[in-house]
Amino acid sequence: MKKFTLAVHSLGNIGSRVVEAALAAPDCQCLGVIRRADSLGTRTQALRGLPEYADLASLEAAQGRPDVIALCGPSRSIPQTAEALLRKGYNCVDSFDVHTDIPQSVMRLDKAAHEGGAVSITAAGWDPGTDSVMRALFEAMAPTGTTFTNFGRGRSMGHSVAARAIAGVEDAVSITIPLGGGRHSRLVYVVLKAGENLADVTARIKADDYFAHDPLEVRQCKDRQELAFAADQSHGVLMERTGASGMTDNQILKFDMRINNPALTAQVLVSCARAATRMEPGCHTLIEVPPIKLLPGERMDIISRMV
Amino acid sequence: MKKFTLAVHSLGNIGSRVVEAALAAPDCQCLGVIRRADSLGTRTQALRGLPEYADLASLEAAQGRPDVIALCGPSRSIPQTAEALLRKGYNCVDSFDVHTDIPQSVMRLDKAAHEGGAVSITAAGWDPGTDSVMRALFEAMAPTGTTFTNFGRGRSMGHSVAARAIAGVEDAVSITIPLGGGRHSRLVYVVLKAGENLADVTARIKADDYFAHDPLEVRQCKDRQELAFAADQSHGVLMERTGASGMTDNQILKFDMRINNPALTAQVLVSCARAATRMEPGCHTLIEVPPIKLLPGERMDIISRMV
Repeated sequence: MKKFTLAVHSLGNIGSRVVEAALAAPDCQCLGVIRRADSLGTRTQALRGLPEYADLASLEAAQGRPDVIALCGPSRSIPQTAEALLRKGYNCVDSFDVHTDIPQSVMRLDKAAHEGGAVSITAAGWDPGTDSVMRALFEAMAPTGTTFTNFGRGRSMGHSVAARAIAGVEDAVSITIPLGGGRHSRLVYVVLKAGENLADVTARIKADDYFAHDPLEVRQCKDRQELAFAADQSHGVLMERTGASGMTDNQILKFDMRINNPALTAQVLVSCARAATRMEPGCHTLIEVPPIKLLPGERMDIISRMV
Repeated sequence: MKKFTLAVHSLGNIGSRVVEAALAAPDCQCLGVIRRADSLGTRTQALRGLPEYADLASLEAAQGRPDVIALCGPSRSIPQTAEALLRKGYNCVDSFDVHTDIPQSVMRLDKAAHEGGAVSITAAGWDPGTDSVMRALFEAMAPTGTTFTNFGRGRSMGHSVAARAIAGVEDAVSITIPLGGGRHSRLVYVVLKAGENLADVTARIKADDYFAHDPLEVRQCKDRQELAFAADQSHGVLMERTGASGMTDNQILKFDMRINNPALTAQVLVSCARAATRMEPGCHTLIEVPPIKLLPGERMDIISRMV
């Protein structure tokens, strides 16, 4: 089987799982990991034997040009990083998850991708990502109706990162709890920095756009050790649509998954990296990718197995 | 909103629901229904006010050339009908459902579609169809693992048509019952032709490829009136995959739907007709169609709503 080459950009929660998904894929050759210079030599077990580099130029000098780069840094840094790489002609995949900023980011990356003759698949995790495909498919199957996307119970990576960035927060974990009807509450465990108080920090968290729209409870842990219990990576979603196909009501569609959160995001990124080698230049969201391109193998073999 | 024009070919179980889905779609103008000459003037309430024609030439003379034709005749007749129309440059959608014949039919229609510069979206119902997309997506999310597609309980249109075609059968309804693990039994209610006996007919049904692979029970009804209780169109599927994303096991994915069977098939056909006006010439299965193309509206609006 012909292999595509992949470089992993950043070795955090997602990047270390992308390494695993890339090594497990039959048609992927992972060239190595690009990390901040001050991280080199740390958490090396997550490299699983792959080489690490301080920048893309070093990786390329040693390993050749990668077919695709998986961007696994902090979500809010993604558009800028992707834009620069796409302009230079590097195909990129990312799991940018700031829902409200996605349309604007797509237009920005589309321009850069066309300039560089490169492919971007963006917002490609599970939500946004595979859940977006489900929402689109459900609406194509029952165009009138209501879809509820019920997240959790589970640790939200995006919300946890956002909570950690709040002034006065030493560390934090944010748990998403479904309330039904697509509504959620957030339970945030925090370790405060010295001299901070819970009421002020709670007010700052509540003011952040990630938390402003849902019921919020903030609980204080005295240190990181006490916070660790909440660090498990299980998550899930129950997506429900009831609607009408044509003039026929009561069409009931449900998608329910229970998963390790970063492992699924990372796997979607690797499947999208494969797809990126088969797409035309431009920036694509997952609903714009023909599902067959996500799978290894030849067209007629996949049709025989799947259709 | 710009409208695409649709012609409906055949006014049976699926065709009459395609009429409804086409009339309900905001961007579809349904030009009329093509029926066998000896059916004209019958079941006219199913036309919902649309004109009927004995052939495509008559429809075209009165209404103009349709952008897409939805083929709703018997499944086994589809490849031949589609091939002829594609060669003449007509875009076609169908819900051909003989799974084992799909790869061969795709190659045949692909050739005809390229000859005519036309688009075919084939095997586009719910299984094959949207279920195929789910299977592909589930495998892209958890590449190692097992998927079980559990159908029913419900009336299988394909199996009912197949049972009705068996020698000695006056009328029949086939119910699919899930046994778990992707296995099923078939419960077939039959009305026999005069002079036939149940044992012989049962043996003939069991010999048909549609029924040969599953446990089968055949029950006799004395007439069509007694058979009518089994004619409801509720159906469903529970698709389950447990597998690994990268090196992380226990990723649990489920898709569960409970639907009116022909209404969903018809809706998928109309959504695919829309997609057909946006695809390159050739024959495509649903896993080869970007999901966004199934929905009405503009790209960035759909991305804003779905992603």
